[in-house]
Amino acid sequence: MIDAVVYTVEGVERRDVDSVEAIEEAKATAGTTWVRVVSDDRAEFERVAESFGIHPLSVEDIHNGVRPKTEDYPNHAFVLARTARLRRGETTFDEEIRSESVGLFVGPDWLVTMEPAATDAVARVWRAVDGGDDRALQAGPDYVAYRALDRIVDDYFLLLDDVETTIEEIEEGVLDGPDPDVLEALNTVRRDLLSFRKILWPTREAVGVLSRGDVDEVRSSTEKYYRDVYDHLVELVDLTETYRDLARGARDIYQNTVAQSTNEVMKTLTVVATVLLPLTFVVGVYGMNFSGGPYAMPELGWRFGYPAVMLGMALITVILVVYFRENDWL
Amino acid sequence: MIDAVVYTVEGVERRDVDSVEAIEEAKATAGTTWVRVVSDDRAEFERVAESFGIHPLSVEDIHNGVRPKTEDYPNHAFVLARTARLRRGETTFDEEIRSESVGLFVGPDWLVTMEPAATDAVARVWRAVDGGDDRALQAGPDYVAYRALDRIVDDYFLLLDDVETTIEEIEEGVLDGPDPDVLEALNTVRRDLLSFRKILWPTREAVGVLSRGDVDEVRSSTEKYYRDVYDHLVELVDLTETYRDLARGARDIYQNTVAQSTNEVMKTLTVVATVLLPLTFVVGVYGMNFSGGPYAMPELGWRFGYPAVMLGMALITVILVVYFRENDWL
Amino acid sequence: MIDAVVYTVEGVERRDVDSVEAIEEAKATAGTTWVRVVSDDRAEFERVAESFGIHPLSVEDIHNGVRPKTEDYPNHAFVLARTARLRRGETTFDEEIRSESVGLFVGPDWLVTMEPAATDAVARVWRAVDGGDDRALQAGPDYVAYRALDRIVDDYFLLLDDVETTIEEIEEGVLDGPDPDVLEALNTVRRDLLSFRKILWPTREAVGVLSRGDVDEVRSSTEKYYRDVYDHLVELVDLTETYRDLARGARDIYQNTVAQSTNEVMKTLTVVATVLLPLTFVVGVYGMNFSGGPYAMPELGWRFGYPAVMLGMALITVILVVYFRENDWL
Amino acid sequence: MIDAVVYTVEGVERRDVDSVEAIEEAKATAGTTWVRVVSDDRAEFERVAESFGIHPLSVEDIHNGVRPKTEDYPNHAFVLARTARLRRGETTFDEEIRSESVGLFVGPDWLVTMEPAATDAVARVWRAVDGGDDRALQAGPDYVAYRALDRIVDDYFLLLDDVETTIEEIEEGVLDGPDPDVLEALNTVRRDLLSFRKILWPTREAVGVLSRGDVDEVRSSTEKYYRDVYDHLVELVDLTETYRDLARGARDIYQNTVAQSTNEVMKTLTVVATVLLPLTFVVGVYGMNFSGGPYAMPELGWRFGYPAVMLGMALITVILVVYFRENDWL
Amino acid sequence: MIDAVVYTVEGVERRDVDSVEAIEEAKATAGTTWVRVVSDDRAEFERVAESFGIHPLSVEDIHNGVRPKTEDYPNHAFVLARTARLRRGETTFDEEIRSESVGLFVGPDWLVTMEPAATDAVARVWRAVDGGDDRALQAGPDYVAYRALDRIVDDYFLLLDDVETTIEEIEEGVLDGPDPDVLEALNTVRRDLLSFRKILWPTREAVGVLSRGDVDEVRSSTEKYYRDVYDHLVELVDLTETYRDLARGARDIYQNTVAQSTNEVMKTLTVVATVLLPLTFVVGVYGMNFSGGPYAMPELGWRFGYPAVMLGMALITVILVVYFRENDWL
Ligand SMILES: [Mg+2]
Ligand SMILES: [Mg+2]
Ligand SMILES: [Mg+2]
Ligand SMILES: [Mg+2]
Ligand SMILES: [Mg+2]
Ligand SMILES: [Mg+2]
Ligand SMILES: [Mg+2]
Ligand SMILES: [Mg+2]
Ligand SMILES: [Mg+2]
Ligand SMILES: [Mg+2]
Ligand SMILES: [Mg+2]
Ligand SMILES: [Mg+2]
Ligand SMILES: [Mg+2]
Ligand SMILES: [Mg+2]
Ligand SMILES: [Mg+2]
Ligand SMILES: [Mg+2]
Ligand SMILES: [Mg+2]
Ligand SMILES: [Mg+2]
Ligand SMILES: [Mg+2]
Ligand SMILES: [Mg+2]
Ligand SMILES: [Mg+2]
Ligand SMILES: [Mg+2]
Ligand SMILES: [Mg+2]
Ligand SMILES: [Mg+2]
Ligand SMILES: [Mg+2]
Ligand SMILES: [Mg+2]
Ligand SMILES: [Mg+2]
Ligand SMILES: [Mg+2]
Ligand SMILES: [Mg+2]
Ligand SMILES: [Mg+2]
Ligand SMILES: [Mg+2]
Repeated sequence: MIDAVVYTVEGVERRDVDSVEAIEEAKATAGTTWVRVVSDDRAEFERVAESFGIHPLSVEDIHNGVRPKTEDYPNHAFVLARTARLRRGETTFDEEIRSESVGLFVGPDWLVTMEPAATDAVARVWRAVDGGDDRALQAGPDYVAYRALDRIVDDYFLLLDDVETTIEEIEEGVLDGPDPDVLEALNTVRRDLLSFRKILWPTREAVGVLSRGDVDEVRSSTEKYYRDVYDHLVELVDLTETYRDLARGARDIYQNTVAQSTNEVMKTLTVVATVLLPLTFVVGVYGMNFSGGPYAMPELGWRFGYPAVMLGMALITVILVVYFRENDWL
Repeated sequence: MIDAVVYTVEGVERRDVDSVEAIEEAKATAGTTWVRVVSDDRAEFERVAESFGIHPLSVEDIHNGVRPKTEDYPNHAFVLARTARLRRGETTFDEEIRSESVGLFVGPDWLVTMEPAATDAVARVWRAVDGGDDRALQAGPDYVAYRALDRIVDDYFLLLDDVETTIEEIEEGVLDGPDPDVLEALNTVRRDLLSFRKILWPTREAVGVLSRGDVDEVRSSTEKYYRDVYDHLVELVDLTETYRDLARGARDIYQNTVAQSTNEVMKTLTVVATVLLPLTFVVGVYGMNFSGGPYAMPELGWRFGYPAVMLGMALITVILVVYFRENDWL
Repeated sequence: MIDAVVYTVEGVERRDVDSVEAIEEAKATAGTTWVRVVSDDRAEFERVAESFGIHPLSVEDIHNGVRPKTEDYPNHAFVLARTARLRRGETTFDEEIRSESVGLFVGPDWLVTMEPAATDAVARVWRAVDGGDDRALQAGPDYVAYRALDRIVDDYFLLLDDVETTIEEIEEGVLDGPDPDVLEALNTVRRDLLSFRKILWPTREAVGVLSRGDVDEVRSSTEKYYRDVYDHLVELVDLTETYRDLARGARDIYQNTVAQSTNEVMKTLTVVATVLLPLTFVVGVYGMNFSGGPYAMPELGWRFGYPAVMLGMALITVILVVYFRENDWL
Repeated sequence: MIDAVVYTVEGVERRDVDSVEAIEEAKATAGTTWVRVVSDDRAEFERVAESFGIHPLSVEDIHNGVRPKTEDYPNHAFVLARTARLRRGETTFDEEIRSESVGLFVGPDWLVTMEPAATDAVARVWRAVDGGDDRALQAGPDYVAYRALDRIVDDYFLLLDDVETTIEEIEEGVLDGPDPDVLEALNTVRRDLLSFRKILWPTREAVGVLSRGDVDEVRSSTEKYYRDVYDHLVELVDLTETYRDLARGARDIYQNTVAQSTNEVMKTLTVVATVLLPLTFVVGVYGMNFSGGPYAMPELGWRFGYPAVMLGMALITVILVVYFRENDWL
Repeated sequence: MIDAVVYTVEGVERRDVDSVEAIEEAKATAGTTWVRVVSDDRAEFERVAESFGIHPLSVEDIHNGVRPKTEDYPNHAFVLARTARLRRGETTFDEEIRSESVGLFVGPDWLVTMEPAATDAVARVWRAVDGGDDRALQAGPDYVAYRALDRIVDDYFLLLDDVETTIEEIEEGVLDGPDPDVLEALNTVRRDLLSFRKILWPTREAVGVLSRGDVDEVRSSTEKYYRDVYDHLVELVDLTETYRDLARGARDIYQNTVAQSTNEVMKTLTVVATVLLPLTFVVGVYGMNFSGGPYAMPELGWRFGYPAVMLGMALITVILVVYFRENDWL
């Protein structure tokens, strides 16, 4: 799908861009020309690329979904960005973060965007421009590109909000006691943060380049907008690192909870055994069958032998229970 | 709430700034003009901003409470700071540190401060200026801005003092024995330090920019005051890292305490079982009912059979107890 | 084995290079001369090196297989690269990654490649040039060197794909329960990633040098190709770090699985002991042989003594089981 | 306490500096003037400071004991250093390292030193100058300041020697078996190293500034002395990091020792239980009271029943013991 | 011991250098003069130092064995290096790596080497020069210094080979089961790597300085030799880090092996107890002495009571064993 608009402060005009000539004509018209290409067919990208003097390696990068970056060419700036959203309910490896490439080519009076799959972020900006949004019409292609990047980065915050919610749930779950599901949830969060970092860090760098005045196609009046996106990206990097540390903290607590539970189980067992093994021994003694004269268990024949033994055992029990209580084992 | 003063070395004058014209007039008056806006209504910020040529993105940053930073504009410097205080008794996630935004715009002969919520730090400096504090009146808006930042940073030390007290308590608690509350306290401290770091690090950077002579609005005679705040921030970063490491050390000790307790519990159990299982076996033997002739348990009929068995068991017990003592199990 | 071709846009010509004179002649012919040396005999390298003004230390580096690097000499650039592939089924130390040295010397109109062992990557490019590949013939020796490096780096991705598969298997295995084989697999992956890092990091640096326009022998039109390889290498570094972290995560889960299993085993034991030790004690009591009058175990003679004791023990069992169930021990 | 000397190559002269005039006069005298102030009263510092054009913020820094640093003022260099010594026998938090501030102000022909508490390092240099030490008299105030810093840094080595001794003791103690005191000693060392790092790192930076030729008051002939102190500080940083790692290693060993001890205790228990539980069961069998005819425990009446059972049990014991020995459980 | 040679392309001449005059004369002779001092007496170093304008602080550094470094003086370059070799069979703290200082002073046409203890590396180069080695005679003092450094660094590889062998042994030992000796060996390796790092990292820096063309005394034709040594040092740093990580991996495996062993021991104990405690209870039941009428244990009188109970217990055993086998406990 190839769509195109030409816009000036006065208004917006849709263009059909079926042929190379139509693209050339749109480009030549006074005003800013935006050509938006959404296609999983690389050939379509390449056709548009040729009209605007875009290098085939850039198209390849968009198609292959490599790391975000900014490249400054003599007649345009190429920004490769990636959307990122969390896809819940997945269990396969490294697939939790859904991410799409977006290529932005910012010329002096034209903008080309390329999406292997249509993204919400670019679509929204398209609708704004197409609908005649004042702020967009007054500014050049660099401002429209900023709007798209701003939306992409705003979605990153939604992703981290989801991560925060998950970590909150994990922190609560962890204190409830050892549960292997919590452990798996922790590992998923950790993996998500790793995947997200791989998108976030190069994006910060790419937007930083645009905000520092080195790229001709970004006017100095637009720079502060890019700096604003850059600030958000720095904040996102901070948050990501913090969540990584929180995930590590939750893992520590989990490990301690298991260790502590084992400790308590062992105490219970030891108390039970320490109380009952002696008693069992005592009753074992009076179950022996000695019968060889006066020294052979005379207690068995005593009038108060049985009550005395029972009382003795009750006493042992009481003493041990008191002892264990005082030492915090019960 | 919008308050304004105009001050010179000679004295302080309060101004009503209800209208745009009143603001413009106050700004035009000879002397330093300080306009203080405290409001949770962004529109009020924007109204003042326009009079002073402040970019709407700066107002947005204050309102949204983004990371501290310094931005140098042609006609003023924008400093975004954050107060930080520890709010005890909270249990919800990431909410332990209470923090408020403070925006400071330092012009050549004017100062605008914006607070979404009134802060103690700015209020104190306001009272000093309003009350005719000599040092403040003699200096320009850069010095007054320094005073506000200095107070904000001084409060950071109070926060870390609280953290230190908590870690001290944890360190004592940890050695008392395994207690899950200690673990939770540790995690809270760790989370607090992470949150504080997110404020502290960018603040250090923001103040560093002001102390290096690159910002026109900071006079060279005021720079050394900013350098002093910067030194404090460097020290705070140091302290924060140290407390992080101490928290990690406390966690290590806690883990070891649990492991050691389990070790001791197991020793107790093993000692009890090792002493009593053999004895129980022995008395079990003499509880058997064999009766088929001379080889069927003749001991039962011996005159000193019973005393001998009891003595034998006492001997076994003594030997085992001595053995365990020598091996530090008891 | 020494092979040589001379090529121009018009075509390719094979050359015999048995003698020093033949090498000199091939070098002097108009067009690009590529001399490919594959030999485990250093002397053969040195012979060719002398003809092209290559320093003996460079030959030594290729032969000894030191770290990848780029060195810029007055009349040529020396790139030392390493192939890397995973060799499964090995158990000896540090030998899992099979890696070969490739030396590339890029002159103004000549290219010399040296391989101690024939590599697939150079062989493929050789076949392309020898077969008259259009893109290769139109470009200079810097482009052909790029093609070889590009293939080497593409193989790195295959290696990491294998590593990812192994980590996926480990992650699944880890959750099945404690199994020492999983632990050994984890350690192997970790070691592989360490060995690969030792190749990857310096390669990134070496290719970075070539892509920054400082090396005369790399034309500005070829630079963007080297930048593309560089991007891939940056991505590979990212992936390697991510896999290291995933391996660490898997180890954490493994440790927790073992700790949790021990916890559960202990609970089982404690439940069994807590139920049966009291019961065994009770039956022991009624196995005692007291017989000295009315207080000596009168229960033994009661009509419902036996059923009462049996019922009592059943009751104790039920209570304990209910208690343990409520506390999640069963 | 304020002391002052004026010295030249020819000799040393003591001065009374009770009044501001006396200070001014001492300063104006030909030769190098050293004013040493030792006082816990900040006012005394400030009085001297004013005479030498020292900024009040510098005095405040010395008084508050902030991080070591060098600040270059137009007419002098300000060096803030800290002594550090290990104070054994303390148990309160963060108090193990005793540290004092020393402020050094190096002018073109004067030196002012300020100590809130008298330090051994400055006292020794004072005695050397006062006693007419040749090397000191021939050089300027920069050399005397170096002498003081050199002594301070030499004492750091003594501190680390103590730390090393403690780690040695811990490493020996750790292998003796689990002992909570060792754990506490480890934590103390770790905390000491953290506190020391907070002094050491900024000191390295502060001395580095002095050794790089940027500070006017340090003559080029004195620079190599500062470089020597800098080398020592680099070495101290190295040592500190190494000791941190050794402390971590000792903690690892400790954890393993506890885990291993638990492992062995469990083995003992399991061996005891595995041997005795079956035997106790067997003797229990022959303690049953069946009596209903030919199938009711005929073994009890056999002539060799008892010896056979005893032999059988001995056999079981032997087999189990052999089995456990072969599996390294005994 | 002070030895001296003067050499040119034409030949080598030994010189006696007993007196200051003899040294001066040797230095003044046409050709390169190498004075080699081996002595544990600092005075001997200082005597030679004075003749060549070497600063006393440099001599002190060699004598005290501080960190390796390069210092560029107006008339010579000072390189302080350290040999390193592994001394097996030692158990005292921090003493496993044997290391000696070597000071190299490279002048325009002279070389002074100072060794507190004779080192193999310098001795070999001395023998080469003294024996008339062609390559040495043709080059200047910078090349001879390179030769000595090259040998020192080659020995570092031998040291790491030993470390690798030890780690291999540890990795094998670790999988055999928990053994405290393995733990101690691991700690030793870790400590060795830490000590070696303290030598290696500054050496890399020191040689890097020599290879970058900033030091006058190193001719541009010799630089590539220093670059070669530098490459080796970078590789050594890489290896050291890798071995540190391998040591950490081995520790992880060791910890897991102990945890897993404890897990298995517990399973054994639990299986034994779970099978035998119920059986012991059952036989206990039939050992009770109830005798009060028809409800008092009538089973005891049944004809098939005993075989039925025995069968029942066999059945319980079989069921439990099957159950445990299915759950992988046996
Ligand atoms: Mg992190
Ligand atoms: Mg972090
Ligand atoms: Mg960190
Ligand atoms: Mg990290
Ligand atoms: Mg971290
Ligand atoms: Mg951390
Ligand atoms: Mg840290
Ligand atoms: Mg730290
Ligand atoms: Mg950290
Ligand atoms: Mg740290
Ligand atoms: Mg650290
Ligand atoms: Mg640490
Ligand atoms: Mg990493
Ligand atoms: Mg990483
Ligand atoms: Mg990391
Ligand atoms: Mg990492
Ligand atoms: Mg990590
Ligand atoms: Mg460290
Ligand atoms: Mg370190
Ligand atoms: Mg560290
Ligand atoms: Mg370290
Ligand atoms: Mg480290
Ligand atoms: Mg370490
Ligand atoms: Mg760690
Ligand atoms: Mg490392
Ligand atoms: Mg590393
Ligand atoms: Mg490290
Ligand atoms: Mg490492
Ligand atoms: Mg690392
Ligand atoms: Mg690492
Ligand atoms: Mg690691």
